Amino acid sequence: MTDTLPLGSTIGILGGGQLGRMLSVAASRLGYKTCIFEPGGDCPASHVANYHFQKNYDDKDALIAFAKSVDVITYEFENIPTSALDILEAHRPIRPGREALRISQDRLTEKTFLNELGLATAPFANVESAEDMIAAVSEIGAPSILKTRRFGYDGKGQARLKSAEDAETALIDMAGAPALLEGFIDFTHEVSVIAARGLSGEVACFDPGENVHEAGILRTTTVPARLSASQRTDAILLAARILNALDYVGVMGVELFVTRQGLIVNEIAPRVHNSGHWTQNGCAVDQFEQHIRAVVGLPLGDGQRHGDVVMENLIGEDMDRLPELLKTRDAAVHLYGKAQTKPGRKMGHVNHIKGKAG
Amino acid sequence: MTDTLPLGSTIGILGGGQLGRMLSVAASRLGYKTCIFEPGGDCPASHVANYHFQKNYDDKDALIAFAKSVDVITYEFENIPTSALDILEAHRPIRPGREALRISQDRLTEKTFLNELGLATAPFANVESAEDMIAAVSEIGAPSILKTRRFGYDGKGQARLKSAEDAETALIDMAGAPALLEGFIDFTHEVSVIAARGLSGEVACFDPGENVHEAGILRTTTVPARLSASQRTDAILLAARILNALDYVGVMGVELFVTRQGLIVNEIAPRVHNSGHWTQNGCAVDQFEQHIRAVVGLPLGDGQRHGDVVMENLIGEDMDRLPELLKTRDAAVHLYGKAQTKPGRKMGHVNHIKGKAG
Repeated sequence: MTDTLPLGSTIGILGGGQLGRMLSVAASRLGYKTCIFEPGGDCPASHVANYHFQKNYDDKDALIAFAKSVDVITYEFENIPTSALDILEAHRPIRPGREALRISQDRLTEKTFLNELGLATAPFANVESAEDMIAAVSEIGAPSILKTRRFGYDGKGQARLKSAEDAETALIDMAGAPALLEGFIDFTHEVSVIAARGLSGEVACFDPGENVHEAGILRTTTVPARLSASQRTDAILLAARILNALDYVGVMGVELFVTRQGLIVNEIAPRVHNSGHWTQNGCAVDQFEQHIRAVVGLPLGDGQRHGDVVMENLIGEDMDRLPELLKTRDAAVHLYGKAQTKPGRKMGHVNHIKGKAG
Repeated sequence: MTDTLPLGSTIGILGGGQLGRMLSVAASRLGYKTCIFEPGGDCPASHVANYHFQKNYDDKDALIAFAKSVDVITYEFENIPTSALDILEAHRPIRPGREALRISQDRLTEKTFLNELGLATAPFANVESAEDMIAAVSEIGAPSILKTRRFGYDGKGQARLKSAEDAETALIDMAGAPALLEGFIDFTHEVSVIAARGLSGEVACFDPGENVHEAGILRTTTVPARLSASQRTDAILLAARILNALDYVGVMGVELFVTRQGLIVNEIAPRVHNSGHWTQNGCAVDQFEQHIRAVVGLPLGDGQRHGDVVMENLIGEDMDRLPELLKTRDAAVHLYGKAQTKPGRKMGHVNHIKGKAG
């Protein structure tokens, strides 16, 4: 295990939300310590991390001190300021690497990269002005969806066009931010592949999960997904192609639309992914541990699933159902320790364990 | 859920070892914070707990400050000084309660309590002097085993008597500490029941596991254990009898010898137990979460097992096998973050997931 970080080393994590929290727990399970960098106080990851740099991303001295206090740096969200990454990278390796971040931070770059790899995406057109918008609508048509190129998540920064008449309002919704008009995809369902690539280049994928969204937020992931054997193979091969092309190290979430014409890549996330939470109760090595293994240079788990799982997000008022869920047989509850319940806020998730893998 | 501690409350844990570590992780999963009290620095639990009082058990001010900073107090080991417990209990509830601690801290009290409940134990005799020893050997005979009444663990503070001639050396081994001579039990195997009792009195047991010890230290726990249906029922009923008699709140480990004459109680531990680690990968709610649920007043998980598991402790040089274990399919590795590997030291454990519950 050349280049493996010794046990007891410290993993720096940018971001202190629930993904950082579950990464910290997984790191501890493998005997590593964690240090998070997160401007907010009392954040989910701070409850279980060894150290917390509660500093801003424009605080150069803090970034340097953070980098020097850890052995490797990873992250739980992709929208990290480039200036901060430049400072950090001068001191410690960042895994997954900068190229994956650069590509996934911008929808235009991402879709272009995927197409160049030979992977299908929704048709798209760049929209930076009213003129662009007119050209884009004439090219892509409607129904379609206008999305900000950067900083979108959980359905935020998106506007639907039912017809060409919605173009103006949609553009106003973007508030001047560069955007992408994406054509409508006639898909039967959405699946995602949680794929990992190790420091020595090996790739391992978890079984694809089937995702259901509501109001742009993931509601449930069901494993196994409805996929034919050949679709399953295709999904895994295309995920591997993306990881290899990026010389990627870590876990990536790859969202796919299942259509009659084949699989279409919706988007990629260079991090552990909400649709991979089921692995906590369905696999010997879950996505969080898999990511940590990759980042510290340990061999990956093989992704083997020992049980079927339905993962359900607990969003906002879903927390009212907690007393009942805690009494539900085979329900594994995972809460994020967020002080306030707000509408649309991810407060936790439940893995309903459905028994032996089929 | 009357008397349930609100989410975000802080659970105080006495002791900072691996059990405290895994209790902290389980507490976080349910949205609670943890504060450990442990004199040692860089201890396993400190890596994942919110707060760490690195103070001694004779530091009255620190104990009061600790108690006031938490909402309820639990513990990962039973040999807590009574003086410390007195101080803590004046400020916050201690769960499991004092009676369970009093009984399990002394082998004589424990065996007497069990016999009074109508439960079988090995024959025993109190040994506080050379005269006691002569009387004990004449009553109990040999082979037998002399054990210190207090502070024994993992086979420490024990001396075997192959014949009556070993009596003198055995007594010297006790170094003047009050001891108990226990008669030899002709058992086929040892099992343990990890039982839990909630704040409102409900009892839930995990499936009994079969334990194999080496040099007095637990080596493996295999689930399911070799037990007939009626033995399984007996095991669960007797565990429940113990918990109810103590008005117990939390998880208890009950070690049983399986003999032709029935089940004999070896010892009880008023805490999460090494032989319950398999539940982390075999149950929706593991023993650590079960303990936290009891302590904060949440409903218990039902103990349902969704898979068969063989738990193997990683002791001392077993850590040399780590590279191989990390590559083993269906092996879930749990390390404790201890800085130094020492012979006989528990460094971690592996749950080998054997598939669907049979």
